[in-house]
Amino acid sequence: MITSNQNSKIKLVRALLGRSKERREAGAFVAEGVRLVEEAVKANWTCRFALYDETLSERGLSQVESLKSRGVDVEEVSVSVMKSISETEAPQGILAVLEFSNLPIPSSPNFILIPDQIRDPGNLGTLLRSAAASGVQAILIPPDTTDAFAPKVLRSGMGAHFRLPIHSMGWEEIEKAVKSDALNVYVADMDGTSCWEQDLRQPVALIVGNEAEGASESARKLADGKISIPMSRETESLNAGVAGSVLMFEIMRQRRVKKK
Amino acid sequence: MITSNQNSKIKLVRALLGRSKERREAGAFVAEGVRLVEEAVKANWTCRFALYDETLSERGLSQVESLKSRGVDVEEVSVSVMKSISETEAPQGILAVLEFSNLPIPSSPNFILIPDQIRDPGNLGTLLRSAAASGVQAILIPPDTTDAFAPKVLRSGMGAHFRLPIHSMGWEEIEKAVKSDALNVYVADMDGTSCWEQDLRQPVALIVGNEAEGASESARKLADGKISIPMSRETESLNAGVAGSVLMFEIMRQRRVKKK
Repeated sequence: MITSNQNSKIKLVRALLGRSKERREAGAFVAEGVRLVEEAVKANWTCRFALYDETLSERGLSQVESLKSRGVDVEEVSVSVMKSISETEAPQGILAVLEFSNLPIPSSPNFILIPDQIRDPGNLGTLLRSAAASGVQAILIPPDTTDAFAPKVLRSGMGAHFRLPIHSMGWEEIEKAVKSDALNVYVADMDGTSCWEQDLRQPVALIVGNEAEGASESARKLADGKISIPMSRETESLNAGVAGSVLMFEIMRQRRVKKK
Repeated sequence: MITSNQNSKIKLVRALLGRSKERREAGAFVAEGVRLVEEAVKANWTCRFALYDETLSERGLSQVESLKSRGVDVEEVSVSVMKSISETEAPQGILAVLEFSNLPIPSSPNFILIPDQIRDPGNLGTLLRSAAASGVQAILIPPDTTDAFAPKVLRSGMGAHFRLPIHSMGWEEIEKAVKSDALNVYVADMDGTSCWEQDLRQPVALIVGNEAEGASESARKLADGKISIPMSRETESLNAGVAGSVLMFEIMRQRRVKKK
């Protein structure tokens, strides 16, 4: 049992839960809590090691067993050490250190999301969760968006990270990707065409910017058009996570309902 | 200038930013920050008093002037006192103590939202903000939902509180209200009819429950039907704020687009 904060695994976990630079350099990230570890196991994600403590629930212990049966190094840590590294208010007694490994982007994708300049981790997690639910096939993360593998993004993503290809890219690379797949690029914008009037059944890359500034210059240059969510009264804007979600489900709706 | 934490106004503000019981007993709540105070001023909301400090921006100072010109008691406080009462990480140097005063529910409403057992203030605020944007005419808050006038709900509501009637009610009262207006009551539920197939153009009361438990027994008893958001892959659920928002905008879409 690990009882020291100076243990090398504990130090690594602490670093990975911190800055994105540490995650990039180590090529790894941390999934914390029963639900997220379960999703990682279900997805057969490569796990470097996992840690648990004696407070872990039965549901969590069965994940420990699954990991062990796959030959993953799983160690018990003391409750106080777990508490000292945990990112959450109510630690669930389990976490796993996982390899960065990008799921491949499907060939000829028809639905891609580009969260642009999204700096709030909760909003980015919400977008990822809704993307997984609405049939998005890949996420391209431009430079000014917050790290998708930060703890809070993982938590609010609720497992989307293990189901969706999430690729960090520069704008040139993004441009190449969307052009080579002949995607129609739409940016969410208050002044755009109503999403209910725009035909969104053809292959689409949707750019969702942040609330305060909207989408970046690079995003606007790339876009073929702008789409908006019609709103009533004097409401100026929606939460970025919500706006993106409403648009993604509208795209899904048109494809399922409006057959031609 | 107020420089003491023992000042009676400061004590009142601190109480109002705390428990809902204090807000109920005082019949007042606090709007903090330039944006919220602006919305309250624009809505001509009754203000007991307002406080600001020297860090206030010019945009904020013009609100101070508007309030003063209406005869509202506005006092300067020291930066340290403001900091000590502020709920936010980066205080903007202004807050207003506002009267509870329910906007009236319009007669024969055709779109009502009932957020049921929503305990996360951020989710409730998101629902209120989306409700204001999607044409909801009134919000009925059942007993097990968190207080709509808590600071975090106000912050994420982004001014919806000053545009929408928000009424706390017991379930009997809610039943009376929806029956007397002959509203069709739908509860958001994974097992419901697809929201894209259900005709939602008739007058509707939409019940959105929380993620973990769904809607309450009382809500289910009241409902005439269940509606769902179709989802792809193994995704089980959406964030409650997002799910409710997608459904509200679908209702708005049907009414705007699907004319008969």
